[in-house]
Formats: sequence, structure tokens, C-alpha cells
Amino acid sequence: MREKIYLGLVHYPVYNRNQETVATSVTNFDIHDISRSCKTYDVKGYHIITPVDAQVELTSRVIGYWKDGFGGNFNKDREEAFSSTYVTESIEKAVEEIEKAEGKKPVIVTTSARVYDNSISYEDMSEKIYNDDNVYLLLFGTGHGLVDEIMDSCTHILDPIRGKTKYNHLSVRSAVAIILDRLLGEK
Amino acid sequence: MREKIYLGLVHYPVYNRNQETVATSVTNFDIHDISRSCKTYDVKGYHIITPVDAQVELTSRVIGYWKDGFGGNFNKDREEAFSSTYVTESIEKAVEEIEKAEGKKPVIVTTSARVYDNSISYEDMSEKIYNDDNVYLLLFGTGHGLVDEIMDSCTHILDPIRGKTKYNHLSVRSAVAIILDRLLGEK
Repeated sequence: MREKIYLGLVHYPVYNRNQETVATSVTNFDIHDISRSCKTYDVKGYHIITPVDAQVELTSRVIGYWKDGFGGNFNKDREEAFSSTYVTESIEKAVEEIEKAEGKKPVIVTTSARVYDNSISYEDMSEKIYNDDNVYLLLFGTGHGLVDEIMDSCTHILDPIRGKTKYNHLSVRSAVAIILDRLLGEK
Repeated sequence: MREKIYLGLVHYPVYNRNQETVATSVTNFDIHDISRSCKTYDVKGYHIITPVDAQVELTSRVIGYWKDGFGGNFNKDREEAFSSTYVTESIEKAVEEIEKAEGKKPVIVTTSARVYDNSISYEDMSEKIYNDDNVYLLLFGTGHGLVDEIMDSCTHILDPIRGKTKYNHLSVRSAVAIILDRLLGEK
């Protein structure tokens, strides 16, 4: 359902360049750019997912500055962008909070540079979002991507973004922007 | 022509929040994210445009680190992303360099949050790019946007990006990603 889209940026569990499971750091630009993209495409909630106490504290402080502090007074557009941004300790916790708010579990959708059995095109996914009454949670991995256990548990995996080249190393911020536009942008 | 697309990120002349003409600072994430987006969509050259000596020096040092220095050895993908990224002192200079390389002046295209007389849809612009033999330079303004003189001198101005809401404050990094995908992404 178009009005019930959520987005999660996962900092744990993800792979590092050696395929080890790690927790990555939250990047200030991921907070800002993705909050702004989510607000533009009317995403209902943006969950920055990290279990690390120091990261939770730092990220909460940044968000608070723009939601309630000096930043929001200085820049009203940014205050608005941050109004639906949350720090959440795990994917499970994000699912739980969405279920509490919506009365049903979200269908989990993710993206990958590979093609899977349950890969889906942007067109088909967009049609589902507009036409069924599910709640959706779009998950994006940081670092070198979501661990296999998470990929295996997703309902849908979006096709890789292809430009024209074989080069496929977009920043997660750019990938989020493109995917929101493909799924939710004006037709 | 699809193979002859260039992109310029303009740090001068642009407006600040008070409609004064200023030079903005180059942001590290603008160098990285936009280089990666350009490489993904096969943009032939990415010009970071700033006339400020200290900014030219700093930006050149960042690019050099990834093109020729330690960074490129550590991360080959990033080295590739930076292979067509340049620091250029003005829009005129970028146009001159493109003309020297291509044998003809580029047609200048920009984008705005407003609609102009010469506004063009993404579909029409994409069709032109794929079907005519012009060289194109896509200009993006930082700060609060390109000054009127530049907007007035452009051949085409792309329609504003609309998500679903009235909120229209994407980061320039996100806007670049979305626009490259709309114009140059797989059909």
C-alpha cells in the first residue's frame, strides 16, 4: 500500500569486504540524505538500524538537533525531513514497531547486486505497492551488504540497479534515491 | 548522443539562502557519490566546478589519492569511479574542454525546482540524448541553486523531480542519481 512504506538502513548484521559479519558506523550523510529522500517520496518511517550504544547515542543526538534543537529552527525543511527518522536497535525491533503502528507485519523487500530466485522487477514491485494492502519495509545494507540470513528471509529482492556499464558501486544514498524514485516516483 | 554526456557540479556562481551570489565549498561526499553515479551511468566526464584556489587544491588532492595514490590500490572500484572526475575553474572552462575533446560545443541542460518556458520532461530529454548527435553537459547547482544568468543561458531545463509530496529538498547527490537514472538508466 502506497501510504504504508517504511525504509530501514541496516548497520548490523552486514558483511565487510572480507565477508565477515560486522556492525558499520552510521554516516552523517546517510542520516541527512536518506531522510530527505524519504520525505520527498512520502516514506512513512525511516529506521536507522544499529545495535551499538555509542552509535545510537550519537545518531539520536544528530536527529534531535534537527527535530527539536537549534537546527530545526534554522532550517525548517530539514526539521520536516527528520520528523519520521528513528534510530532502532535491530531489524526485528523495526518490524515490531511497524507492526504495532499498522496492525500487521510488514512485507520485507531488499535489493542486491545479484539476481535471486525471488528477484522482482521495479515495475512489478511498484504495482504491488500501489495495488495491494500490505505494509512494506524496504531494507538497505551498508558495508558490503546484508548477510545471507537476512537475504534468505526477505519476501522480495529487487533486481540490481543497472546503469549502462558493468560498474555497479553506487553509494547506498544514491541507491536509495534511485529505488524510491523507481518504486514511488510520479508515473 | 548517449556516449557524449558530461556532468558539472557548480560551486560558483550559485545563490545562498539570501539570494546572494556565492561560491560554496566542495563536499567530500559530492566528490565520491557523484563520481560513482557517473561511472554507473557511463557519464564521460564529471567536472567539479570551483574557482576558489584552496578548494581546487583540496579537491585535486582527494581525487589524486583515489586516482593515483594509496586509495586506488586499496579500493579498485573507487579508483575506477574517479577516473573521469576533474576539478575545473568555471563553467566556461568546462565547456571549452568538452568542445576541445568532442569537436563541438555541448548543449547545456540543467534542472530546477521551478518550471520554465524551456522546461522539458525526462522522457523527451532522454529521447533527444539517445537519438541526436549533440554533446550534452548536465549542470547541477549547489547551495540554493544556479544563478539566473546561468538558468537563462541553458538550452533545456529539466522538470522538477516530484516524489509524491510537496517536499522537494533532495540533496544534490540524490538528485543527480535520480536524474541520471531517469535519463540514462536501462529502459
